[in-house]
Amino acid sequence: MKNLKGRAVFAQSGGPTAVINSSIAGGLIEALNQDLITDVLCALHGIKGVLTEDFVDIGKEDLSELYALKNTPASEFGSVRYKLKDFNVDDTDYKKILEIFKKYDVKYFFYNGGNDSMDTCDKISRFMEKEGYPVNVIGIPKTIDNDLVGTDHCPGYGSAAKYVATTITEVYKDAVIYESPLVIVLEIMGRNAGWLTASSALASLTGCGADLIYLPEIPFSLEKFKNDVKKVVDEKRVCIVAVSEGIKNAEGKYVGEDASATDVFGHSSLGGVCGVLKSAVKSIGYKCKAIELNILQRCASHVASKTDVEEAFEVGRQSVIHAVNGETDKMIAYVRRDGEYALDFVGKDLSTIANAEKTVPLEWINKDGTGLTQEFIDYALPLIQGEPERRIENGLPSYAKLKMIKFKL
Amino acid sequence: MKNLKGRAVFAQSGGPTAVINSSIAGGLIEALNQDLITDVLCALHGIKGVLTEDFVDIGKEDLSELYALKNTPASEFGSVRYKLKDFNVDDTDYKKILEIFKKYDVKYFFYNGGNDSMDTCDKISRFMEKEGYPVNVIGIPKTIDNDLVGTDHCPGYGSAAKYVATTITEVYKDAVIYESPLVIVLEIMGRNAGWLTASSALASLTGCGADLIYLPEIPFSLEKFKNDVKKVVDEKRVCIVAVSEGIKNAEGKYVGEDASATDVFGHSSLGGVCGVLKSAVKSIGYKCKAIELNILQRCASHVASKTDVEEAFEVGRQSVIHAVNGETDKMIAYVRRDGEYALDFVGKDLSTIANAEKTVPLEWINKDGTGLTQEFIDYALPLIQGEPERRIENGLPSYAKLKMIKFKL
Repeated sequence: MKNLKGRAVFAQSGGPTAVINSSIAGGLIEALNQDLITDVLCALHGIKGVLTEDFVDIGKEDLSELYALKNTPASEFGSVRYKLKDFNVDDTDYKKILEIFKKYDVKYFFYNGGNDSMDTCDKISRFMEKEGYPVNVIGIPKTIDNDLVGTDHCPGYGSAAKYVATTITEVYKDAVIYESPLVIVLEIMGRNAGWLTASSALASLTGCGADLIYLPEIPFSLEKFKNDVKKVVDEKRVCIVAVSEGIKNAEGKYVGEDASATDVFGHSSLGGVCGVLKSAVKSIGYKCKAIELNILQRCASHVASKTDVEEAFEVGRQSVIHAVNGETDKMIAYVRRDGEYALDFVGKDLSTIANAEKTVPLEWINKDGTGLTQEFIDYALPLIQGEPERRIENGLPSYAKLKMIKFKL
Repeated sequence: MKNLKGRAVFAQSGGPTAVINSSIAGGLIEALNQDLITDVLCALHGIKGVLTEDFVDIGKEDLSELYALKNTPASEFGSVRYKLKDFNVDDTDYKKILEIFKKYDVKYFFYNGGNDSMDTCDKISRFMEKEGYPVNVIGIPKTIDNDLVGTDHCPGYGSAAKYVATTITEVYKDAVIYESPLVIVLEIMGRNAGWLTASSALASLTGCGADLIYLPEIPFSLEKFKNDVKKVVDEKRVCIVAVSEGIKNAEGKYVGEDASATDVFGHSSLGGVCGVLKSAVKSIGYKCKAIELNILQRCASHVASKTDVEEAFEVGRQSVIHAVNGETDKMIAYVRRDGEYALDFVGKDLSTIANAEKTVPLEWINKDGTGLTQEFIDYALPLIQGEPERRIENGLPSYAKLKMIKFKL
């Protein structure tokens, strides 16, 4: 809806990335500049902060500290694991949100997150439309998993990919110093989409790449894995394996599944893959180190991609510009131009994005299922370029220091 | 011995660091400049490369690539797990080395490594002296463990400490985003000396420090640990634990010991501590993530300390200068000046250094055994300062590319 005048509420959700704060910074700073937006609020801990009216008054923050968010990892305004029900089944939360939107005169709502957050965003947007309440709702994408549909890539992916490729390069140098055979297995995040694990292929450009890369897109066989490792060790002595936490066997069962733990969205809690693969490697007689990159890969802002940081900031800004221009129920997507690398920022219907997952195209995976093709390298390489300027104090990162003053009506 | 003229042989040994190559670069470049040194050779894979006459001719390398070693992690000339016997028991290897030193007219020998390497260096030096063969033998220190005696600190420690403190800072930001209690346990290298684990205390300067720090210098109790964690979670919701792989219980048994694996030096192979602590945390009802920093902490040259890189280069240079000036059977140590941070480079007797370990002074550990005092911060903070220039290509590290041409007589 055009020319809406009122308050804007931002919130963050889902797992952290190195640049999710760059996106919210872009959005907040742009919103402060917009005449149609009377106050800029941030809800703490995602949608929960909306439900509990836990709002920070961004107008009270120093602009320099908002800019410092560009290099502050994780979600500065908190996150939440809370799934809104279908409003046709139970609309309690939605009615509460509507009441609060009315009370605070919220005319713009920005939700910064991944798949599940885009779903939340879409549901709120559709409920408000059904109720006839005028509010422009925009999803600001983020995820290291790079699995949102409708966008060339996701803010956060480039930095995580740069961390993974840099780490593989360093681990390779460490692994080759002895004359004895050694296998190193690195377990990388990505439940159903192998984008981040695939980024280990970028390290091949340094001459220090992963030898074997296993994505969840291809069914995994432990027997084939052992043969693959044997072949590499026979030829090269050292074998670097990059494996997705989400690899599944031919029956579709997660290789690293811990059946005892699922999150509120019903996803299994993974993490045991590198242990399983280490045992397999030891069973064929080689020394093996297993390294789970764990949360380090999603919060390593010290090695963020400048391209990613700047694009993430811009997608935040563009979200506000699109909303003020009347767009609603959209996620702002990256559309890659032909020719030299550059992006357009385009609003795409949230309903086409929520609950869908984009996986690595099978034609970008080599025939043997153990590596990526040049098409993938061409796709991913521009995303990891550049070193962002970052504040350093005492030789350590200096992050944004926000006042976090609560907004009161 | 003064005015020795002949060839110089360098070799690297022990585990990698982010700056061991900076030291060898400093040594090699200085040696190429010295008139008394006729050829500069590097033995591959430590002392084994001497025994097998596997020498690289450094005179054939491009100077720019030797300088690029300053930011190339791990041991470019390989390492080795090989322990020389006591020559009073078996002098076979020593006689072989003497024969090769004579054959190649080796008058300078530089061994770049940690505790075990200084022991190797000392033994070779004493054997050559006993046999009356003139060769100046100098140990070039390195170890992320920072446990060599006689030196203020060790090359490699500052960069590993910077990696640990940076990582703790990022992990802290990631951990606090949810409203539910969370404990994160980071397992850090250091068998008997807690220096590297202690460096997690530096993160407190960012406001994102570790809450509990356990060093091997203090006997560890799982019951006390559980109480410590409870107290922090009650107060702060999130608890970041930094723990040394080498913590031992009151009976002196490693908490993470895997009795089945020992290396050739008889050290136990550690690594299971974070799993043990994770189970303990879960037993008191909290969610826990366990992160083993593994080899990442010793090879992360992308976040190296400029101070460490430059000091490591200089200690390599000084080793050559001291040797050419007639010193032998020494390790070049860092001696910290009073007042503003600066170092002198002083030769210390290898016999006083080999097989000794410097641990963290007990008075630098707080009374509760869970943190470090200001004295430690004052000691360690200068060592992590500065970001080195590094070559980047395609958004990834670009390391030294050596020709590795074999030296032939």
